[in-house]
Amino acid sequence: MGAALGGCRDEAVQRALATVSEFSGPPQSTVIGHPQRLDMLNAALVNAISSNILDFDDTHAHMILHPVSLIACALLALSETRRMTGCEFLHALTLGVEVEVRVRNPRVADYNFAWSPTATVGAMGAAAACGRVLALSEQQTAWALGIAATQAGGLRETGGSMSKAFNPGHAARCGLTAALLAAKGFTGSETVLEGPKGYIAAFGQAKNVDAIIEGWGESYQIELNTFKPFPCGIVGHAATDACLELYREGVRSDAVESMQLTVHPVTVKMMGRNAPTSALDAKLSVRHTAAAALVFGTVGVKQFDLACINDAEVTRLREQALLVIDERFRTDEAEAQLTLRDGRVLMKHIDHAVGGLERPITDAGLESKLKGLAEDVLSNAQIATLIELLWTFDKLEDASALARAVRN
Amino acid sequence: MGAALGGCRDEAVQRALATVSEFSGPPQSTVIGHPQRLDMLNAALVNAISSNILDFDDTHAHMILHPVSLIACALLALSETRRMTGCEFLHALTLGVEVEVRVRNPRVADYNFAWSPTATVGAMGAAAACGRVLALSEQQTAWALGIAATQAGGLRETGGSMSKAFNPGHAARCGLTAALLAAKGFTGSETVLEGPKGYIAAFGQAKNVDAIIEGWGESYQIELNTFKPFPCGIVGHAATDACLELYREGVRSDAVESMQLTVHPVTVKMMGRNAPTSALDAKLSVRHTAAAALVFGTVGVKQFDLACINDAEVTRLREQALLVIDERFRTDEAEAQLTLRDGRVLMKHIDHAVGGLERPITDAGLESKLKGLAEDVLSNAQIATLIELLWTFDKLEDASALARAVRN
Repeated sequence: MGAALGGCRDEAVQRALATVSEFSGPPQSTVIGHPQRLDMLNAALVNAISSNILDFDDTHAHMILHPVSLIACALLALSETRRMTGCEFLHALTLGVEVEVRVRNPRVADYNFAWSPTATVGAMGAAAACGRVLALSEQQTAWALGIAATQAGGLRETGGSMSKAFNPGHAARCGLTAALLAAKGFTGSETVLEGPKGYIAAFGQAKNVDAIIEGWGESYQIELNTFKPFPCGIVGHAATDACLELYREGVRSDAVESMQLTVHPVTVKMMGRNAPTSALDAKLSVRHTAAAALVFGTVGVKQFDLACINDAEVTRLREQALLVIDERFRTDEAEAQLTLRDGRVLMKHIDHAVGGLERPITDAGLESKLKGLAEDVLSNAQIATLIELLWTFDKLEDASALARAVRN
Repeated sequence: MGAALGGCRDEAVQRALATVSEFSGPPQSTVIGHPQRLDMLNAALVNAISSNILDFDDTHAHMILHPVSLIACALLALSETRRMTGCEFLHALTLGVEVEVRVRNPRVADYNFAWSPTATVGAMGAAAACGRVLALSEQQTAWALGIAATQAGGLRETGGSMSKAFNPGHAARCGLTAALLAAKGFTGSETVLEGPKGYIAAFGQAKNVDAIIEGWGESYQIELNTFKPFPCGIVGHAATDACLELYREGVRSDAVESMQLTVHPVTVKMMGRNAPTSALDAKLSVRHTAAAALVFGTVGVKQFDLACINDAEVTRLREQALLVIDERFRTDEAEAQLTLRDGRVLMKHIDHAVGGLERPITDAGLESKLKGLAEDVLSNAQIATLIELLWTFDKLEDASALARAVRN
C-alpha cells in the first residue's frame, strides 16, 4: 500500500489514468490516492502500475519477484464489488502468492531471461486469488488459470520506460479478467502449464514441472516475502543501514570528517557510481545513500530527489567517501567507519541488512516507510487511520474499508 | 467480416460479452451481429473473438497466421470514435498486416512453437494500424509498438478451449490500448524488438532481425493473404473443390453409385476420418466434405452440423468413398472419380484448390461465403447492403458505415 501511495502521482500513472478513464465502466473501485473511481478491471490496472513505479514493493527473498503488490491491487478492486472479510482477502492473497512463486521456481523450468518474472506469473497469481474470492469451482479455477496463462507476458526490455510499471498493471487486469470469464463459464486449457504448447514450454525449458505442487500446503511462500526499507539497489542496503544505525546512536553529519564503507565486491560493481545527477543515478550510488543516511537519518524516496542529491552536506560526505572491497563479506553485510572532526573513529558492522529474512523490517520500520510514502498523498489523520486499518486487517468484516481509506 | 458474423453467436462470444458488458465504458462501438455496443476496447476484444471462432478467417499463404481479422476488428471499433475514410482504414490495415507478417517471418527468428503466431504478433499489428489512424508521431509509434510487444502472448495449448479464440481478441484489445496510451505520452521501450531482453529474444532465437525491414514498401504482405473457401482442414480443399465442380456441371448425388478420391498422402493422414459424429470430426474427414459437396453443392458451416453429418445421402456417399494416395500429388491437388448408376464414370482433376494464391477465391465465391456466414445473423437486405459497402469500401467518406451495417 505504501509503494502504491508513493507511486500514484507519477507521470506514468497520470497518463495511464487519462487513457483508461475514457473507456472505464461503472466507477466501482478506488484509484489509490486519487478521487476518481474506475471499473474494477481498470482500477486493478492503474493501482498495480502505481505500486510498481518506485521499485519499492515487496520482494520474495529467494526470487527476483514482487509477488504481493499486483495481486493485492486486483483483490482491492474486487473487494469493492464483491463482499469479502479481511481474512478472506488475506487467504486469497496467500493463495495467489503461492501460485506465482511456485510456477516461477527455477526448479520447474529454466525461464528465458527476457521475460520479467513478476509480470509473467502475475496474471496466474491474480486469477487464483480472485478466483478464490469468486468461489470458483475446481473446474472454473483450472479455466481461470488457463485464461490467465495465455495472457501472460511482460518484457524486461521495458526497463527505463513507463511500460516497465505497466507490466504488473496489465498482469493484475488480465488475472482478474480471467477469473471473471471463468466464473461465466468461459473455458480455458486445463493443461496450460504442463502441456507441450503451454506456459512452461513457451517461457523457458521445462525441468521438473511436478515441483510446482511439491509440499503444497506444508509451508507458505508468503513467509519468504520481504519489505525493502530503502528505495535503492538492494546490495547497498547494508552500508546504508550501518550509517542509519550510527545516526540513531547520535552521530550527526557535521561532526563527520570522512567516511569509509567496506562492502562486498558486487556492491562496488552495481552501486559504485559517484556524482549522481538523477534519481536513477543516486539509486545506484552507495556513497550517496550512506551520505544521505548520515545527513537526514532516513533514506526514503525524498533522499533521491535533486534537492537531496545537490544538498551541500550530502555532496561533501559523498565525494570523500571511500569504498573498500572485502571479498569475505556477504552482499547483505557491510561496515561503516567514520572519522570525526575531533579525531575519534566510529565503526558499525552490519551482519545482515535490515529488510531481509534474517533481520526483517520492524513494525515501526514498516510504519515509517508507509508514512514517508503516503505523506504527500494523504493527511496525517488519514495515514493514522490507514495504519490502524492495516494492523487489524484480519479482523475486518468488510475488506473494502481499505480501499475507502486510500482515496484522496 | 464473414468470419466474425459466422462466429458471433457462438457460446464463447456470448460468455465473453456477458463478462465484459458489466465493465464496459461508453457504448461507442458496435459488437458485430449484436444490438448492444461497448467501449471500443471491449468491442475490439469481442469482435476479434467472433472472427476467430470458426477458423474461417483470412490466412497468409506463406505463414500459419491470420493477419487481417484482429486488426480489422481494432480499426472497426476505432472507426466509430475517430473519423476515418475507407481508404484510411485500408491504409492502416495494410500497415498493420505488414508489421505482423514481417515480425513473424521465420528468417527473423526461430520462434518457439508453443506460441500462437496470430496472437503473438497481433498486438503489434493492431498498434501499428491504430497508431496510423491516431496520427501518432514517429516517437509515439515506437512507444506504441513497445507497449504492444510487452503485452504480447497467446499459447497454442489453448486449442480446444474458448480461450483459443480469446487470444486474437486479447491481442486486438492490447494493440488498440497500446496506441491510445502512446497517444497520451505513455512511453514504451524503443528497442523492444531487437533488444537483448526484447520480443525476439523472449519468443524465440534471433536469426536475422534486420530482415524485418528488408524491402519495406517494395511489396506488400497483404497481397499474399488468402481467403479459405471451406471451413475444414486445408488439405481436403482440393478434393472438395473437385466434387463441387462436378456438382456445378450438373451431377447430382442420386445419380452417383460410388466415389473415389485421389489425394496427397498428408490428406489421408490429417483428414482420413470416417463416420464423423461431431463438427470437429467432420472437419477432419475429406470423405465427408466431398460427399456434402455432391449432395448440397456448397460446403459451408452448415455442412458440418449434425443434420448434415447424419443426412442419409451424405452418409451413403461418405461410407463407400474410397481414398487413394498418389505421392506425386501436391497437397492442393486432387482427383475425384465418380461411378454413376448408369455405368458412366466421371473424372475431375484439380491442379490447385480454390482459395490459394494460384487460384484465389472469386469475387462471387467471397460473396457466397459471406452470405452463408451471415444468413442467420442479418436479413437478406442487410447482407446485400453489407456486400455493396464492402466492394466500395475504399470510396467511403466515413468508414464507420461498415460498423453500422453489421449491427443486429
